[in-house]
Amino acid sequence: MKIALLGHGIVGSGVTSILEDGKIEGIEVAKILTKRKRDRKDERYTLDFDEIKNDPDIDTVVECMGGETPSYAYVKECLSKGKNVVSANKMLLARHPDLFETAERNGVCLLAEASTAGGIPWIKELGRISRNDEIVSVSGIFNGTCNYILSKIFEEGMSFREALTQAQENGYAESDPSDDLCGYDTRYKLVLSILYAFHKTVPYDKIPARGIEHLSDRAIEYGKQNGCVLKLIGSCFVREEKLQAYVLPCFIRQEDLFAKVNENNNIVNLQSKYLGSLSLIGQGAGSLPTGEAIIQDLLDLREGSAQSVRIAGSGQIDDGPEGVFYVISKAKSLERFIDQRIDEESFLSIRCPLKTILEELREEDFIALTA
Amino acid sequence: MKIALLGHGIVGSGVTSILEDGKIEGIEVAKILTKRKRDRKDERYTLDFDEIKNDPDIDTVVECMGGETPSYAYVKECLSKGKNVVSANKMLLARHPDLFETAERNGVCLLAEASTAGGIPWIKELGRISRNDEIVSVSGIFNGTCNYILSKIFEEGMSFREALTQAQENGYAESDPSDDLCGYDTRYKLVLSILYAFHKTVPYDKIPARGIEHLSDRAIEYGKQNGCVLKLIGSCFVREEKLQAYVLPCFIRQEDLFAKVNENNNIVNLQSKYLGSLSLIGQGAGSLPTGEAIIQDLLDLREGSAQSVRIAGSGQIDDGPEGVFYVISKAKSLERFIDQRIDEESFLSIRCPLKTILEELREEDFIALTA
Repeated sequence: MKIALLGHGIVGSGVTSILEDGKIEGIEVAKILTKRKRDRKDERYTLDFDEIKNDPDIDTVVECMGGETPSYAYVKECLSKGKNVVSANKMLLARHPDLFETAERNGVCLLAEASTAGGIPWIKELGRISRNDEIVSVSGIFNGTCNYILSKIFEEGMSFREALTQAQENGYAESDPSDDLCGYDTRYKLVLSILYAFHKTVPYDKIPARGIEHLSDRAIEYGKQNGCVLKLIGSCFVREEKLQAYVLPCFIRQEDLFAKVNENNNIVNLQSKYLGSLSLIGQGAGSLPTGEAIIQDLLDLREGSAQSVRIAGSGQIDDGPEGVFYVISKAKSLERFIDQRIDEESFLSIRCPLKTILEELREEDFIALTA
Repeated sequence: MKIALLGHGIVGSGVTSILEDGKIEGIEVAKILTKRKRDRKDERYTLDFDEIKNDPDIDTVVECMGGETPSYAYVKECLSKGKNVVSANKMLLARHPDLFETAERNGVCLLAEASTAGGIPWIKELGRISRNDEIVSVSGIFNGTCNYILSKIFEEGMSFREALTQAQENGYAESDPSDDLCGYDTRYKLVLSILYAFHKTVPYDKIPARGIEHLSDRAIEYGKQNGCVLKLIGSCFVREEKLQAYVLPCFIRQEDLFAKVNENNNIVNLQSKYLGSLSLIGQGAGSLPTGEAIIQDLLDLREGSAQSVRIAGSGQIDDGPEGVFYVISKAKSLERFIDQRIDEESFLSIRCPLKTILEELREEDFIALTA
């Protein structure tokens, strides 16, 4: 099996180090597309995508460039040329589910284990379990950066600023961490979880998402006083044929399982008719865990057991869950939602649909679901 | 695909109810072997195993009788006749790994997802991950009965006797619960976890195993005073090519993940070179979760992606881990192990190999690994 890598950053180099470790036979990296000439002399490096696209011996392409441009065009071309694609790119796949249809039309596979929850075999198990079981919800802590920051705050008493700086110093957060902090990364992963669990596509921007970027000491204090930690959670329930989905900071009681998932770990959970509740906890990012997720897809391809996700149509997102929300805001228009004022800037809401309260929230406000 | 069930108790009826739910096409239960004539008129019931064995249309047999007799002979005959076997029987498979060789010789599959950790896809993932990754340990809470009892004791303040009675009333414990309480059930599941993770067979009786059958208020009190709960854990680490395995009650700090797995749930964990730590939590028993695990194996067979475990040889069990043990015993011969006496009947040991202390322990003594 001859493969090519598009991109050789954190994830791509995880793939090549595992392959160089030598335990896998029969998977050869023939070419690696890179953006710039590298120092090390490696004949596999190329700056020219056409070399990969037009090489008939390369039957599978691993896309680990990230972003949409040029990865969307590259993946589409590879699929159209009859090559399987294994992608770690949650943004690409969540925004462009048409790529799965391109794969199907061309009789090849588009696989995505590494796109969501890193080394945790979440995508594979959603696919397997949904073959016959009826999954009714998926939820999880999908973003290691936020979880690292929130753990440092709640377990070690750091401020938000200190925790973010430490995350950046340790390579857990990028210099512009807004995709992680604002909940967009979590939302892409939730969209892909929905696709694999319910076989429905949903427009990612229809899912309400708030992040932890405006987390303040006030909210941290509230959590601690109430025996809770904060976690950034993506969640989707099936309710009367509709999907109730959100990405929100949530207060979690210290005794709950989700509260015990710390550092940069992920937890993902599904509820289903036959299995009840199933949770998986592990490394949601990192070079080797994510690289290994790609290798698992490659091994499935080699064994002939790989399958692209089956898409049964588009899903309808409803107004989000009803709940009691913790809100920090100075907006006057929110007064009708106040059930209990905590101090002059924060309150607990009446029980209301998430959407109604989000419509009034300003960009700089903070909202979290209470425990 | 025509299948037959051997046995129609809790697990077997889980399989038929899921199939009758109608979401799976192409799997037909042709015959069900039962021990006694049933009241309901179901043409599929038979008392005669030969009817199943000699039916050339039945290509797969699901064994959910439990025990060794006659299931060993039946499974062997089915495999020899060229039928795939899906088994939920941990005792059978742990004691008779030769059955996997019989399957291989006959070019059929022997699958065991349901045998260990019920609805949790543990066996499948061990098989998948060990294709290329190097698993270095497997451990878990494998027995739902003990976990239910220990949860009631530590979370709800029940006595051991009350908790056992309640487990029996709720169907979580059998009228003779000794296989669960003494750790034998956990040991079988550990043997199978070792087989799938390390591809090594180990004689089950070479793994030291103690259970919670002699748990007393004294030990419960010790745990509570030290911020710990007790869990019955099966564990195996690779140490210098040897396997360090044990089944023991373990004190677990309340803040640890394992302490949050309560009621009749299971947690299983693996550590590997590429993935780091991966934990799975779910229903380890019950009609539907275990039935669904069997269905997953059947779906793999139907898709042609099923594989029996590959056995690479036999594993050597070493003297067990070194540790500090909590011991309740009146045996004089244990005095050399005492580091700190707690009261006249219990003590904390010096750091020592498990095997040396077990050799001196009496049947009625209690031992647990400290946190």
